Amino acid sequence: MIDLKKINQTKDLRKELEKELGVELKHIAKFSLDVKKIKNKNCENMIGALQIPLGIAGPCLIKGSEGKIKNYYLPLATTEGALVASVSRGCKATRLSGGINCFLEDIGTTRGPVFATKNLAESFAFVSWLEKNLAILKNIAVKTSNHLKLLKQESEVVGNRVFVRFYFDTQEAMGMNMVTLATQAIVNFIKNKKKITCLSLSGNYCIDKKPAWINLIKKRGKSVWAEAVLPKKIVKKVLKTTPQEIVSIVQSKCFLGSALSGSLGFNSHFSNITLAMFLATGQDAAHAVEASLGITWAQVQEDGSLYFSCFLPSLMVGSVGGGTGLETQQEALKILGLKGKKGDARKLAQIIGAGVLAGELSLLSALASQDLARAHQKLGKGVI
Amino acid sequence: MIDLKKINQTKDLRKELEKELGVELKHIAKFSLDVKKIKNKNCENMIGALQIPLGIAGPCLIKGSEGKIKNYYLPLATTEGALVASVSRGCKATRLSGGINCFLEDIGTTRGPVFATKNLAESFAFVSWLEKNLAILKNIAVKTSNHLKLLKQESEVVGNRVFVRFYFDTQEAMGMNMVTLATQAIVNFIKNKKKITCLSLSGNYCIDKKPAWINLIKKRGKSVWAEAVLPKKIVKKVLKTTPQEIVSIVQSKCFLGSALSGSLGFNSHFSNITLAMFLATGQDAAHAVEASLGITWAQVQEDGSLYFSCFLPSLMVGSVGGGTGLETQQEALKILGLKGKKGDARKLAQIIGAGVLAGELSLLSALASQDLARAHQKLGKGVI
Amino acid sequence: MIDLKKINQTKDLRKELEKELGVELKHIAKFSLDVKKIKNKNCENMIGALQIPLGIAGPCLIKGSEGKIKNYYLPLATTEGALVASVSRGCKATRLSGGINCFLEDIGTTRGPVFATKNLAESFAFVSWLEKNLAILKNIAVKTSNHLKLLKQESEVVGNRVFVRFYFDTQEAMGMNMVTLATQAIVNFIKNKKKITCLSLSGNYCIDKKPAWINLIKKRGKSVWAEAVLPKKIVKKVLKTTPQEIVSIVQSKCFLGSALSGSLGFNSHFSNITLAMFLATGQDAAHAVEASLGITWAQVQEDGSLYFSCFLPSLMVGSVGGGTGLETQQEALKILGLKGKKGDARKLAQIIGAGVLAGELSLLSALASQDLARAHQKLGKGVI
Amino acid sequence: MIDLKKINQTKDLRKELEKELGVELKHIAKFSLDVKKIKNKNCENMIGALQIPLGIAGPCLIKGSEGKIKNYYLPLATTEGALVASVSRGCKATRLSGGINCFLEDIGTTRGPVFATKNLAESFAFVSWLEKNLAILKNIAVKTSNHLKLLKQESEVVGNRVFVRFYFDTQEAMGMNMVTLATQAIVNFIKNKKKITCLSLSGNYCIDKKPAWINLIKKRGKSVWAEAVLPKKIVKKVLKTTPQEIVSIVQSKCFLGSALSGSLGFNSHFSNITLAMFLATGQDAAHAVEASLGITWAQVQEDGSLYFSCFLPSLMVGSVGGGTGLETQQEALKILGLKGKKGDARKLAQIIGAGVLAGELSLLSALASQDLARAHQKLGKGVI
Repeated sequence: MIDLKKINQTKDLRKELEKELGVELKHIAKFSLDVKKIKNKNCENMIGALQIPLGIAGPCLIKGSEGKIKNYYLPLATTEGALVASVSRGCKATRLSGGINCFLEDIGTTRGPVFATKNLAESFAFVSWLEKNLAILKNIAVKTSNHLKLLKQESEVVGNRVFVRFYFDTQEAMGMNMVTLATQAIVNFIKNKKKITCLSLSGNYCIDKKPAWINLIKKRGKSVWAEAVLPKKIVKKVLKTTPQEIVSIVQSKCFLGSALSGSLGFNSHFSNITLAMFLATGQDAAHAVEASLGITWAQVQEDGSLYFSCFLPSLMVGSVGGGTGLETQQEALKILGLKGKKGDARKLAQIIGAGVLAGELSLLSALASQDLARAHQKLGKGVI
Repeated sequence: MIDLKKINQTKDLRKELEKELGVELKHIAKFSLDVKKIKNKNCENMIGALQIPLGIAGPCLIKGSEGKIKNYYLPLATTEGALVASVSRGCKATRLSGGINCFLEDIGTTRGPVFATKNLAESFAFVSWLEKNLAILKNIAVKTSNHLKLLKQESEVVGNRVFVRFYFDTQEAMGMNMVTLATQAIVNFIKNKKKITCLSLSGNYCIDKKPAWINLIKKRGKSVWAEAVLPKKIVKKVLKTTPQEIVSIVQSKCFLGSALSGSLGFNSHFSNITLAMFLATGQDAAHAVEASLGITWAQVQEDGSLYFSCFLPSLMVGSVGGGTGLETQQEALKILGLKGKKGDARKLAQIIGAGVLAGELSLLSALASQDLARAHQKLGKGVI
Repeated sequence: MIDLKKINQTKDLRKELEKELGVELKHIAKFSLDVKKIKNKNCENMIGALQIPLGIAGPCLIKGSEGKIKNYYLPLATTEGALVASVSRGCKATRLSGGINCFLEDIGTTRGPVFATKNLAESFAFVSWLEKNLAILKNIAVKTSNHLKLLKQESEVVGNRVFVRFYFDTQEAMGMNMVTLATQAIVNFIKNKKKITCLSLSGNYCIDKKPAWINLIKKRGKSVWAEAVLPKKIVKKVLKTTPQEIVSIVQSKCFLGSALSGSLGFNSHFSNITLAMFLATGQDAAHAVEASLGITWAQVQEDGSLYFSCFLPSLMVGSVGGGTGLETQQEALKILGLKGKKGDARKLAQIIGAGVLAGELSLLSALASQDLARAHQKLGKGVI
Repeated sequence: MIDLKKINQTKDLRKELEKELGVELKHIAKFSLDVKKIKNKNCENMIGALQIPLGIAGPCLIKGSEGKIKNYYLPLATTEGALVASVSRGCKATRLSGGINCFLEDIGTTRGPVFATKNLAESFAFVSWLEKNLAILKNIAVKTSNHLKLLKQESEVVGNRVFVRFYFDTQEAMGMNMVTLATQAIVNFIKNKKKITCLSLSGNYCIDKKPAWINLIKKRGKSVWAEAVLPKKIVKKVLKTTPQEIVSIVQSKCFLGSALSGSLGFNSHFSNITLAMFLATGQDAAHAVEASLGITWAQVQEDGSLYFSCFLPSLMVGSVGGGTGLETQQEALKILGLKGKKGDARKLAQIIGAGVLAGELSLLSALASQDLARAHQKLGKGVI
């Protein structure tokens, strides 16, 4: 048995493992990431790197909340055949239709600790204190990082438990780590000042990386809305179906089917695109859970064109921090023209939202035109 | 604007993109994956590969449903600092306590098409026909692949819509692609035989990569249960807390907090571990959405020890197919001793379940002992 | 302070209360219910009766699963103005369109105890034992009542807890009480035979009178589907709107709006009609909670007519037992031609389903035609 | 076939029905309600009244948010045996322990229309307009009734649909009707001013009488919290069990069981008590759906006593309006000392919350002590 902690060098650890298990790890050994940077920041007991194919979809014509319209090549890291091709097709159809409009709302990165009180009286007194002392808490938070601002708090009481949802502006970073540190500082202050103990820095009221209605109803991170209007002709030519067919499938599958399944995802495959783009751009990919929430909405307009729209309530993304600094991820961000400067996280969220719309449109069209099976048989693959 | 489809070579596409965008993609260019294998199977418009740090946690002592007890080194592909260290700590605590017991139930890979009928009478006649003709449908399914068996079907009616959930045994593969082809064959047969149209091969009654109660209540793919019993001493020594503290946090956070958030994840961070292990072993990582569902349950036993258990209702994993064939992913599977032979997918699911338990135990302990903030400040990172 | 238990006579208790509180209860005193029958069966510490206005809607033309088509006058006990009138209007529109088709599936009355085991091994051994010994359990159940049959069981494991959902056929009764007694007998047998303790006769896996996805996904009690096809002309004439308008509101309100609210009710007001008919016919009215689950589905057909359908997954109703035996409730049942004979519970469920469809149709039409406000201003009331 | 609309007199309609159906409705004929008042306000096509047994539980010792502590006799209209006795037992146990503390938050009666826009740009412009013009909307609302005040609005966008949740203070009334009229006035103003059409006065974003997460997460109507601390001795003597047993059942049933069922009710039977008290006091009883949401939380305190608490997020109650004016309902309100004066609706909500706590405590104790079956066999009844 190897004591993993005792071996400090990536190479040595890999060697030791190869010996112990009698396996060869020559591909895992091939990487260009900077081990030193990674070690105390992104991964412990590192033995090398995993490689994931990186494909390019697009270009995707996007008009973001800043008002500029621009073509983007979308990097997707995926092992799922047809995904890149499918998103590309959606990009083409929307590009020919004038592009995708995106809107964004900054909700904030949340952390939701749970506190223990003596009883309801103390719980409500504490809630009231929190409301009155928000300015003080903001001061405490801001001292923990220059890149963070406490925006607001919302609390809920159940008996002798108080849950507080702190919302932070974390600028260009997704920011869960700094938010945790800031919350710890707040919690320490509360303990000293109010003698109220925090049972857990996260009381699942954040709620992080678990599917939950609160993240759709109150939203979290960045909320993105994307829309496109496609003339009937382009739907026919590029997507091989009709606006009416797409609307019919959205109703029967995304609404009625999701209702019967008890789903929080009234869409067809938000998670495929968000995950592939999260991986490519160095996001914390487990946030694909939140990113799978959301709604695809379609209607035939009076002139016969297709109105198509996606609502993503809870995107947790950043253009700096976490895995965004890794070499390959940096390059993927550069493909999108993002370098961690002011506003880049907002841009990234909207680009992902547009990619999602392109992917939704293409998959729903494939289902409508029933050429999915043919695609599978030809390429031995399939995205549904 | 580059026409991505026109450029066939990975190298050429990358070059073209570098030129067009004025960026250098030298790290994305460094990979050892076999492009030819990938191109028509895993990724279109490939320009190179993304690298994700691969760390090793463990060893994790696991007693699976086959009855053997064995140490496993767990490969995790992640950019989230502290995750590997945290899982390792959970592995240590459970290893010193006699290991983790795992149980597995094969539910089957599901595909849930939606059909259009004329009215309720036709809907119910169709449901009844499906029940009576299951044997015929099984025959049709089996002809589409040697590696697949239709197990059962469950249907639901809403007006002139019929949703059918087909459950397949897909052996060592996760199998969504072959299941889609088999469902298409069934659907074609139904169209010819019954003149009933399938509106969409997936009616979100599968339900794939969207969070949904049906995947917790009826389960999907492979369901895994893991448990460990930890003496009070080991909880104290390795996890720096007490069984009572852990139970208290499970109640306030995983149950009360998740209830208040409207969550389907009554756990602390299933998704972190499942995603990192999915990536490492070449799974379709968007299935992290289903894998985030589930329950962590803890109790103090009469002798003061900690009973700790995790229930993962819906793991979609395979030891062959999809991304499992890629070179680095293959090596990660070999670290686990898995080579795509009979039973390996079941083993993999249980190993992931055990990894999840280790990760849950460690994070909940960190929250209990409140050394989380210290860990953050020291390492600039944090898993909650 | 009155010791309520010490006073045995309804009249005396009322008098005592009037004296103690200085109030006059002369209306509560006016009732024709038989106190003796009620006392040990329906209500303790009885001081009289509450009066609720009883209105008649319809007639409603219904074709049930037995194939007969017939007009029914629907009794609704309600204090909500416009409800009876609204259901009546829906009855008229469907009656002129050929009536409402109903279908029913008997799911069974469920009781879901929770058992405590030592660990997963014992949990799964117990589950396996339950499957193998169903015949024995059926025997035990049947001995507790002539009117009850155990149909099947479904179980779920979480660590050292096992939840079992027993499904019973309770003939003409809703049957929760007899099901509880039967489950107690089963649980006693298990305790003796397997030394496995039942923690709680109800482990909320039934699940009774709480809104829950399991009651929509696996259903409970009686499931009813109702449908009607309405010519465009009748929609115009009786409902003052168009099929397209109704479909549009169903999509935006019942699906999109319910999705945004995190609802299990993809309908407009199932609960209004179910509750009023439950009260009138002596049902356990708290089952209005389950009855509020369900889906309203509408489409414009090719000939321009409206296809309209309601799915009620979980109706808990009986034609005997509980409050059905009370004098006024008996009379309401007689208005429907129901006397507790074989098949009457099935009939009642379908009549309620048809009433719900009529009510849904009328309210959605009122919303579509926007004459709701006018109705309110005229009558000072409103059903939405 | 009777044309119900043509017959104006209650007596005549009943007679006609008796003749047509060949039934006798002599009990339905016995009532003391004032038909004239009811006719255009509470019920159309009235043929008489339904009688429901009214029992008295308690007294219940309650300390409300106003700070006074007082004994209340609780009126429950029910046909479910054991319910009144069970609530009474809970009242006794808490009364001997110093009573039940209640807290209340006025959230407001909500109405959630859905609007149709051209696209996202118009949707967000509208949302922004709503925020800026709240004062104007408040003015419009207040003109529709002296008893109503618009408090705030929250909106959500999905493509070309905007959902707005208006929150109103409706003083002593539950207020759905006046809220609907006020919303209609607002909607008319918007149509004139902004040329934006309201598709439906209710877009299920209210959300009324359907179970939905938004009513737990954002709450609705009046939110009530109740708590009691019971010495171990009293739990033993009155409830025949121990604090530890109750806590154990709360964890396994109300949390784990409800989690497995996909429930929004983490309690045992809120709906039984809320419905019985709603009926008695003339509430719109279909609001039992919202009232079934909520959480029961229990813990053993250091001194061995039981901490027990209930959270009811969404109580829709009033002390005037609707069915509260009926003669028997008026008398039931008088039993509680409520006459529709300022603050009475708040009192009523808290009294109901306290009744719920008493009922929860008693049922969970019965489950813990397993004397439920005995109670059933003795009295032929049962509340679970």
